[in-house]
Amino acid sequence: MSHPYKEFEPKWITDAPNPKSFRSIMKWGDPNFYKAPKEGLYKLIKSTFNLTDDDFKEMVDTGEQIVDMKVETKLSEEQVKAIKEIVGDEFATIDDFTRISLAYGKTMIDIMRLRKGIVENVPDIVVYPSTTEEVQKLLAYADSNGIKVYIHAGGSSVTRGTEPMVGPNMMIETQKRFNKVIEFNEVNQTITVQPGITGPALEKLLNNAPENFGSTKRYTCGHFPQSFEYSCVGGWVTTRGSGQNSTYYGCAADIVLSQEYVTPVGVIKSDNKPRKATGPDIDQIMMGSEGCFGILTQVTLKIFNLSEKHLKFSFMFPTWEEGMAVMREVMQGEFGHPSAFRLSDAEETDMMSHMYGIIGSPLEPMLKATGYKMHQRCLLLGFCDGEIGYQKNVVKNIKKIAKKHHGLYLTGYVTTSWEHGRFNDPYLRDTIQDYGIIIDTLECAVNWDNMPSVHDSVREVVKAWPNAICTCHISHSYPQGANLYFIFIIKTTSLEDFKKYHSSILKAIADSGAALSHHHGIGKLFAPYLEENIGTAQMNVNKELKKYFDPNNTLNPGGTLGLDEHPDNF
Amino acid sequence: MSHPYKEFEPKWITDAPNPKSFRSIMKWGDPNFYKAPKEGLYKLIKSTFNLTDDDFKEMVDTGEQIVDMKVETKLSEEQVKAIKEIVGDEFATIDDFTRISLAYGKTMIDIMRLRKGIVENVPDIVVYPSTTEEVQKLLAYADSNGIKVYIHAGGSSVTRGTEPMVGPNMMIETQKRFNKVIEFNEVNQTITVQPGITGPALEKLLNNAPENFGSTKRYTCGHFPQSFEYSCVGGWVTTRGSGQNSTYYGCAADIVLSQEYVTPVGVIKSDNKPRKATGPDIDQIMMGSEGCFGILTQVTLKIFNLSEKHLKFSFMFPTWEEGMAVMREVMQGEFGHPSAFRLSDAEETDMMSHMYGIIGSPLEPMLKATGYKMHQRCLLLGFCDGEIGYQKNVVKNIKKIAKKHHGLYLTGYVTTSWEHGRFNDPYLRDTIQDYGIIIDTLECAVNWDNMPSVHDSVREVVKAWPNAICTCHISHSYPQGANLYFIFIIKTTSLEDFKKYHSSILKAIADSGAALSHHHGIGKLFAPYLEENIGTAQMNVNKELKKYFDPNNTLNPGGTLGLDEHPDNF
Repeated sequence: MSHPYKEFEPKWITDAPNPKSFRSIMKWGDPNFYKAPKEGLYKLIKSTFNLTDDDFKEMVDTGEQIVDMKVETKLSEEQVKAIKEIVGDEFATIDDFTRISLAYGKTMIDIMRLRKGIVENVPDIVVYPSTTEEVQKLLAYADSNGIKVYIHAGGSSVTRGTEPMVGPNMMIETQKRFNKVIEFNEVNQTITVQPGITGPALEKLLNNAPENFGSTKRYTCGHFPQSFEYSCVGGWVTTRGSGQNSTYYGCAADIVLSQEYVTPVGVIKSDNKPRKATGPDIDQIMMGSEGCFGILTQVTLKIFNLSEKHLKFSFMFPTWEEGMAVMREVMQGEFGHPSAFRLSDAEETDMMSHMYGIIGSPLEPMLKATGYKMHQRCLLLGFCDGEIGYQKNVVKNIKKIAKKHHGLYLTGYVTTSWEHGRFNDPYLRDTIQDYGIIIDTLECAVNWDNMPSVHDSVREVVKAWPNAICTCHISHSYPQGANLYFIFIIKTTSLEDFKKYHSSILKAIADSGAALSHHHGIGKLFAPYLEENIGTAQMNVNKELKKYFDPNNTLNPGGTLGLDEHPDNF
Repeated sequence: MSHPYKEFEPKWITDAPNPKSFRSIMKWGDPNFYKAPKEGLYKLIKSTFNLTDDDFKEMVDTGEQIVDMKVETKLSEEQVKAIKEIVGDEFATIDDFTRISLAYGKTMIDIMRLRKGIVENVPDIVVYPSTTEEVQKLLAYADSNGIKVYIHAGGSSVTRGTEPMVGPNMMIETQKRFNKVIEFNEVNQTITVQPGITGPALEKLLNNAPENFGSTKRYTCGHFPQSFEYSCVGGWVTTRGSGQNSTYYGCAADIVLSQEYVTPVGVIKSDNKPRKATGPDIDQIMMGSEGCFGILTQVTLKIFNLSEKHLKFSFMFPTWEEGMAVMREVMQGEFGHPSAFRLSDAEETDMMSHMYGIIGSPLEPMLKATGYKMHQRCLLLGFCDGEIGYQKNVVKNIKKIAKKHHGLYLTGYVTTSWEHGRFNDPYLRDTIQDYGIIIDTLECAVNWDNMPSVHDSVREVVKAWPNAICTCHISHSYPQGANLYFIFIIKTTSLEDFKKYHSSILKAIADSGAALSHHHGIGKLFAPYLEENIGTAQMNVNKELKKYFDPNNTLNPGGTLGLDEHPDNF
């Protein structure tokens, strides 16, 4: 995906990477797809980092080198044989490339390491089970033989969630074979699936439910994270993910009705009842356990009507404060909620003005003339889901509130531009990084009354990197608060410098009074800041649960959720 | 509250009970209020149980006798002194009557025992702390001195939830002094309170928020269980209660944002963030723990806009099946949800036709003529909350769906009648029981596809009692299912027979595939059926958490949630 430049345009890597290269592992999504920055963004990057076109003539750390490493498995021949016997010979492998390709997720640290050809933690065997029974057997064998167990689904973790830190181990890959539909139930509006089903596979099944299941209506899963196209249901659920439409559909934890986990102490299976008062909620114990308490083997999700129309809207506000006031008033207005609902701060609005074509369009002079100044103005966009009368009432009320706060109505035009790119921005990250520019993100959850302060204090730390670009938006909002989603662009190829910088932002979030993660989960990367953030008392409950479910620390060990010691190579 | 009879009317006890009598403990609510059955209901009871007016001339087990028991406290003088030192001399008492009056809740077994002057489990001391620090000290002292701790808030439990089965013990009463507002936060739309605040006290504060807190808007708590007037926030939260408007506002577990619990291993305090992905959800572990993991000392609740108007509606449907179909379609329609939403089955509709004045009104001949037959027709009623455009859209869509399913629109008239009695029906229970007629209720949570089968199988067991009246309604619904709320009326004064009967219904619910409790909680009475209902694996997690939080089994021991052995006197 390219956009014609008027002036000098750098050369981008447009071909699919060699399937045996580090780049093939590192690159986001479809090997044949790439996304170049629009010219406006390219110019912004150049001017921000005092670069010239000459700086975009030589690429660095492209990861195009072939993976020719040999990494000995730490499993004995006997152990490999035993594991193969459980799943069948063709569904377990100690092949070097396969194992290396599942070592990492999509954390920036993973990308940087792969670009440099650094592979620190390689699973000792990759296994592809297809049934709960096989998973049970694998876990039982592993648990009684001192073999650690890691799970790989979509592999889009940005928290080093699945990295196999401790060995000997096995990596259970779920996307390939553990991805079936168990039951579709139209009366209850639910679908029960195995965890390895991808977002698009699930969504297509539901959109075409009349053809696939003989249903009377078409459905949607309602969960669309930016990683949608390359993420799996298992990851959504076990990390408490959120989709970009969570303001209407709810986060993964709201969409889950029941689950089945295989744990070292047995199978935990919750029921499908819509609500109950029968003691602590086991589903809410298992969700967020990120592979440390058990292996998710089945999940029943609520499904939603496929909306025929999506009413769109967008507004410009003179300031971030007025934009936030509108979001809060909308979320507290009790007239229904929009589905996508996104407010960009001033720096992001400026960048989006470049990226989504406001600058250069007839809008720009109008904005200037009416007092919506660059560096101050903020863009709010969104669209609705649900029955059409509901959507109309939501938009009507949003317009009323926006007007009160000096919002300039921009029609649905900007929303359409945003929608177009909303799943493919990760491709852009790869393209730009070929020239040593890093785009990464961090997010947190905040109450309304604390939002200006968190925004300021985290931004300050992000901005401490020389010339850092720091944009921020609210993309998931609630009556009691919202998330803040920070995107930062810096110039570096140093893994060590990046790690220090990333840690400083995590610490700033933890210190700011925000929740450490709104929907990225904790994994291994965020874990050092978790105890400070949730408190020791709560941390101890998590540790107690870990001890109960997994007394031998078989499941996802090596720092995940701060449940065991942090290894040295962190 | 009385309704003039045309024919013979039994004498009812209309005066407030002697404040030293068993009746004063047993009677629901305001001592000076009573509610007599309407003549239609009285006649129905007479004909159902083959009774004559003569059977309503002599009362039985009225509990009017004075409590003149002495129950020795099992605490030593030294222990009493130490406890008094913590809270102050005047806020702890071993007075017999006070202790006896807090022995029970409002379970039918409690009522029957009090009517007969039977008091089985009397707390050894009643304590009235006012701060978290005092609760901490009380728990620390109790835990290290082998004293068990029970909590009493509204005392409206219908599951023997607070009964102090094991001694020596202390009963912490929260309604009297542990009932303050800690913080009102309009920006975040939250209120933080101590657990002993009653429903009406909280609601009044919120309705008058501009006067009380200088807010810009008026608010509501959104939680209105039938026990509303005599229940406390602490009970709502720790038992996972639901109000009659939960279809719009959510159940207690949805309304809670954060909590503070004092436990034997320290204070657990969750944060106010609107949503997070930071591991297992501690709030959902503590809610439903029913006083067994810790003592709730503070809770932050979401608050809602006080609706200026409530659009009402009611419909008659030819059959239960069509009524259920409408509810399901409404809950799955994604046009918003009504607030109160209640479908009565045929037997309940017949009874409501008696109670709410349909029979005898011009409606009755019209209903007959248009094919809505007694014993088959089902009444659906409800009203809306939220912004007025939202309400209008909800009602518009409900009307459309109801029409499709042969619903006859009955205006809001019936809803108004129902609203009028919705908090004072418990008074009726007392009045009728003076003549040996018991009204009791049990409820469960069910998926839509299993609802007809659960309705049939539980009804069959209820109906096994000679001439039992069994009515049922759906009062809390969701896209994936709803509750079934059974009301049964039988004639008995035998505690033993009633216990056996009650158990048989609980067992029928557990066996039917429903969740054992939708919003009554589990307590001690339902506990024997819990493990079968949620499974041993989940039960073991609860037991593990209990062992962690409360290793000495200090908190609410004696069978609650099935976490310890069932005592003999059960």
